[in-house]
Amino acid sequence: MLTTLPQTMPAIRKLNDAPGLNYCHDIALPEMGPRDVLVAVTHAGICGTDRHIYEWDAWSRNRVKMGITTGHEFVGRVVAVGEATQRTKVGQRVSAEGHIGCGFCEQCRTGNGHICNTVDILGIDCNGCFAPFIAVPETNIWPVHADIPDKVAAVFDPLGNAVHTVMAAGVSGKTVLITGVGIIGLMAVTVAKAAGATRIFVTDLDQRRMELAMKLGAEQSFDAQQPWVEKLQQVTSGGPQVLLEMSGNATAIRNGLEALQNGGTAALLGIPADDVSLDLSELVIFRGATVLGINGRKMFETWYQMENLILSEQLELDSIITHQIEMKDFETGFAMMQSGEAIKVVMKIPQHEGEACQTANSTSEQLS
Amino acid sequence: MLTTLPQTMPAIRKLNDAPGLNYCHDIALPEMGPRDVLVAVTHAGICGTDRHIYEWDAWSRNRVKMGITTGHEFVGRVVAVGEATQRTKVGQRVSAEGHIGCGFCEQCRTGNGHICNTVDILGIDCNGCFAPFIAVPETNIWPVHADIPDKVAAVFDPLGNAVHTVMAAGVSGKTVLITGVGIIGLMAVTVAKAAGATRIFVTDLDQRRMELAMKLGAEQSFDAQQPWVEKLQQVTSGGPQVLLEMSGNATAIRNGLEALQNGGTAALLGIPADDVSLDLSELVIFRGATVLGINGRKMFETWYQMENLILSEQLELDSIITHQIEMKDFETGFAMMQSGEAIKVVMKIPQHEGEACQTANSTSEQLS
Amino acid sequence: MLTTLPQTMPAIRKLNDAPGLNYCHDIALPEMGPRDVLVAVTHAGICGTDRHIYEWDAWSRNRVKMGITTGHEFVGRVVAVGEATQRTKVGQRVSAEGHIGCGFCEQCRTGNGHICNTVDILGIDCNGCFAPFIAVPETNIWPVHADIPDKVAAVFDPLGNAVHTVMAAGVSGKTVLITGVGIIGLMAVTVAKAAGATRIFVTDLDQRRMELAMKLGAEQSFDAQQPWVEKLQQVTSGGPQVLLEMSGNATAIRNGLEALQNGGTAALLGIPADDVSLDLSELVIFRGATVLGINGRKMFETWYQMENLILSEQLELDSIITHQIEMKDFETGFAMMQSGEAIKVVMKIPQHEGEACQTANSTSEQLS
Amino acid sequence: MLTTLPQTMPAIRKLNDAPGLNYCHDIALPEMGPRDVLVAVTHAGICGTDRHIYEWDAWSRNRVKMGITTGHEFVGRVVAVGEATQRTKVGQRVSAEGHIGCGFCEQCRTGNGHICNTVDILGIDCNGCFAPFIAVPETNIWPVHADIPDKVAAVFDPLGNAVHTVMAAGVSGKTVLITGVGIIGLMAVTVAKAAGATRIFVTDLDQRRMELAMKLGAEQSFDAQQPWVEKLQQVTSGGPQVLLEMSGNATAIRNGLEALQNGGTAALLGIPADDVSLDLSELVIFRGATVLGINGRKMFETWYQMENLILSEQLELDSIITHQIEMKDFETGFAMMQSGEAIKVVMKIPQHEGEACQTANSTSEQLS
Repeated sequence: MLTTLPQTMPAIRKLNDAPGLNYCHDIALPEMGPRDVLVAVTHAGICGTDRHIYEWDAWSRNRVKMGITTGHEFVGRVVAVGEATQRTKVGQRVSAEGHIGCGFCEQCRTGNGHICNTVDILGIDCNGCFAPFIAVPETNIWPVHADIPDKVAAVFDPLGNAVHTVMAAGVSGKTVLITGVGIIGLMAVTVAKAAGATRIFVTDLDQRRMELAMKLGAEQSFDAQQPWVEKLQQVTSGGPQVLLEMSGNATAIRNGLEALQNGGTAALLGIPADDVSLDLSELVIFRGATVLGINGRKMFETWYQMENLILSEQLELDSIITHQIEMKDFETGFAMMQSGEAIKVVMKIPQHEGEACQTANSTSEQLS
Repeated sequence: MLTTLPQTMPAIRKLNDAPGLNYCHDIALPEMGPRDVLVAVTHAGICGTDRHIYEWDAWSRNRVKMGITTGHEFVGRVVAVGEATQRTKVGQRVSAEGHIGCGFCEQCRTGNGHICNTVDILGIDCNGCFAPFIAVPETNIWPVHADIPDKVAAVFDPLGNAVHTVMAAGVSGKTVLITGVGIIGLMAVTVAKAAGATRIFVTDLDQRRMELAMKLGAEQSFDAQQPWVEKLQQVTSGGPQVLLEMSGNATAIRNGLEALQNGGTAALLGIPADDVSLDLSELVIFRGATVLGINGRKMFETWYQMENLILSEQLELDSIITHQIEMKDFETGFAMMQSGEAIKVVMKIPQHEGEACQTANSTSEQLS
Repeated sequence: MLTTLPQTMPAIRKLNDAPGLNYCHDIALPEMGPRDVLVAVTHAGICGTDRHIYEWDAWSRNRVKMGITTGHEFVGRVVAVGEATQRTKVGQRVSAEGHIGCGFCEQCRTGNGHICNTVDILGIDCNGCFAPFIAVPETNIWPVHADIPDKVAAVFDPLGNAVHTVMAAGVSGKTVLITGVGIIGLMAVTVAKAAGATRIFVTDLDQRRMELAMKLGAEQSFDAQQPWVEKLQQVTSGGPQVLLEMSGNATAIRNGLEALQNGGTAALLGIPADDVSLDLSELVIFRGATVLGINGRKMFETWYQMENLILSEQLELDSIITHQIEMKDFETGFAMMQSGEAIKVVMKIPQHEGEACQTANSTSEQLS
Repeated sequence: MLTTLPQTMPAIRKLNDAPGLNYCHDIALPEMGPRDVLVAVTHAGICGTDRHIYEWDAWSRNRVKMGITTGHEFVGRVVAVGEATQRTKVGQRVSAEGHIGCGFCEQCRTGNGHICNTVDILGIDCNGCFAPFIAVPETNIWPVHADIPDKVAAVFDPLGNAVHTVMAAGVSGKTVLITGVGIIGLMAVTVAKAAGATRIFVTDLDQRRMELAMKLGAEQSFDAQQPWVEKLQQVTSGGPQVLLEMSGNATAIRNGLEALQNGGTAALLGIPADDVSLDLSELVIFRGATVLGINGRKMFETWYQMENLILSEQLELDSIITHQIEMKDFETGFAMMQSGEAIKVVMKIPQHEGEACQTANSTSEQLS
């Protein structure tokens, strides 16, 4: 099947040490190792992380490999398999876990590859999915169930973040507070509801998103700029039992912990940009709280849970995946995310293109 | 307030070593210790256990204290409190946990009083709630939330069995099989759905109950008289992850375990009348199954979970509590349960009555 | 038996808003409610908390009820029982849980009374055990096993803190770091070893205590003033799996979290005096850590675990309980703790004394 | 390095449908796939399973592939690696997990490959380690820590069974009963002790093994032919908290469950030959027991736990690994196991041999 592949492809790459991304042409197809699978990407989600890279914030400047093809959320079809692969078939519809663990450390060998110390992340450490083709180790491949639509399969990565957070915290039969209803926070609302949360409360600065959270199953929303901790404790008779922290905001973290019932559980997914000052005695120790750091998706426990939840038809994702655009219009996608017009944007990826790369210093060498 | 109480009351008692129960009059009110609470019962559920006592089966003959006032599911209002009680107020609407633990053994002191070795059960070991008044230790009292209707509060006991089973097994994001959809099995369907089960399957002999299970959220039902294990494994890609065993039937237990996915969890609530022969190697050991024995309700973790679930308005109990009758018509209640016309029957309890007991050997001595 | 009791007793009380404690005479015996037990204290441990009260630090000034009899760790014999008690017998040797929960909140009713929102603590909120007699609710009484010596029974409270922390973290088969080897940290060394920790490392500023920790089973100690995180990670191939934080020191908390293996568990018992600034992203979120706030002892799961561990004869407590003194010499006890000469000091409590209180404003009114 | 390998090797194979095993010569070396590792076996343990195959019992006749090289416990050195392997180096000292999962099912992808539905077992479904060379998928390879001696590394498989059982049950701070102290039962004694069990009791028919169990840390042993349940309950104040079932004997299972404290945990590793009849109501349901089926070793959580425990130097394995013999003397090894003279027998494996196979129908075709 390799014979039918084009010689080159377009790709959205980070070429310059400045804001923006480049739509390159004539990029060589990814090289495949014997254990890899080559996937023709059909749909790719734009992640908040991609926006950081686009905006070239401090984190991105420190972390992202220059010249890389960005993107890590996708669905596509297998077009070639390495000679030492075992199961994957050409033609299979697949997505992939974007964290590539070493495979041999204690974390990787005990179902915790998401916290492997030497993890590589697609689109950050090696070439990603904002291109018609991506090479991925077969162990990272996730066969997509026939009943799951492409646009949902394209966002398994952030949906998996939400599922991981919700399932790690344990919401069944419990009252839940979600601080921050960005993309993943909104997904967490619908996931928590499907997973058996009895009552869901949210707080954020953005009224439109809180309204959407209400539609997705939240009972009440609190404007983060107004005092809300006491109100929430009143309406929940002493505080929610679970906190899902999705904002990374220091005040939200402190208020969320303060709101929690004694003995409650806080799952932290949002990533604070700076150190957070906490009254550990009052917020954690005296109240016997459990605080869980959440990162990525459990490989692959989270993926099975996610598939179960999607197939149960209890998740409402249509109102979260607000836009589908063409790959070449990626700048419109980022702009809509920045303006708040869009929540989740999925790009349709073209299969062929032959023009030269717009940017001089783009080359076809492979980074992964 | 004691002054306003009547001298005697009616009570449904087990007076003869034979099938049936007696509607007695002129029974003395229960005696109260300093730590007890006297409750004017307004509604009482008829339990499957009460039916066993009514039908006077082998278990009942061995277990039930002769002469006792039966019944253990109820709601009512506090009319008197012992002098060493601490919180309970006259006038409060309350239900009660029917298992009276010793309070001082390891189980009782670690939140596991339901498996106290010397537990007394209302209506079995001491006088129960099929009477206008019942005395209960304050530590067993459960204040009923104002938003919960009487007929629901009257069946906390079996609903708590269902909640205990569902929450112990852990159904959030999982595929669930329920073997046996009698009263508690049907409750387990609606509880499992509210607690986040993604798919629910049921098996039973009774078509009407399976139809009701479907209405309550089950996806598919299997006639227990036909082979169903393989069919279920096909539709669930290898078997459900959780078994809630509610029948006590040996074949159902074996088939349920066989159906389970490797690494699955089985929670056994149904009580087999005889020993059960099991291929432990194939059904439990090789597949790495977890089997949980479930009894009563965790005191009081289960009660908080139950309240949360009821208040979430996710439970559908109206179609399970099919009949409300007067206490004097209790024989009609048992007959409707026997015929299958009724599922759960709740009795309304009168507050006063003065006639003599119909049966010669009834006396007013207290058993509890 | 009440008739044989003295009219008054001595007591160590907090009478003045200044450092120090007063040895009072002629204090009236504690009043007993119908659910209480009166215990003749024979031995009482001096806690770090008592030292805070003695030194009258900021926490004490805000928290401690003026005029109170201090002390909360003890063993003694029952001399009287309230008329509504159920099991306790005069003459029984007992200790007691010092946290008096409300008994009726969700925490108290689910085995988590240690985090009851309205908990009263002996010797802080109500009269304590630095006196020949103390009144305690029967539900707080712990019968002491005959094989456990008095001096050990006198320190169940801090030993229970250590057991709670160790068992909550889960050390069986794991590598453990203990930051801070004061009294409870040293107890945690011997408890962790008995509970199945495979390797134990400690860090502190005090060389003598670290040497003792080594004798108790630690493999290596690190001077907290020197860089140690990297060294520990090398010797443990990537960091310990469990952190038991016993210092309350912000740097120790940060270093301890940094040292942890990805996916590790940190149990925080030490109480920071101020807010702690944490790089939550690196220390908790990205590494998938679990952080547990630990407070008091689980009521009474911890007590059963502690009894099991003591009776297994795996705990080495003799070298931790370094001194036994007379109650009247309490100031010597505090001085030895301050100088570091003593680790744990147990006071022998006299049974009778008749002189007048040394301090004018002492009275016999009861605070509890 | 392949060039230095011999053309053929000896191997202990199952050639005839009858008791016994054949020592074959001139067997072709195992074929390697691109993901496989070729190991020069230096030491191999004889498992109880190998004895079943040697004695050719009903289970073996149904399960074992005729013609196969037997054996699945070993340590050796890597002599060749497939071209698609990733980490393993020629010269590395390694052992291997003997269960070869499919790698792509839910169990395999969530750290539960031990209960993969299509698992292949070395020496049963494909060629094993009773030969100088074995080919194993790299994902099954376990690098052996330099501080672990060969004879211990040769028995990781049964030791891992014991570790899996002990750690799944959770023995830290608990009283433990072990029913059956064969090889794995004895290993469970020393593992449970190291993992923090406070008291260990054993029952068996064999006095010598029970004496050894006492030396390894058991407190008391009970002759399985005498009534012992009540005695154990007395000495443990109500029964042990954990049962580790290592016998597969129906009576032991029933008695062990009966002995358990209410709310206890039973981990079943011993494999009953026939169905077991159980009073599920009394033994499991009413007492709120948890029953865990245990199989193999968690991949690879159990292996890390095992390494930690061995390196802690808390395990006493020298008195369990009683004999080391030459591979050609394998029949002596089986005889010593049968007579009870030996407990665990480890064979030293020769590196070269060139004679013809003793048995006509042996061939060099590969089964794995």
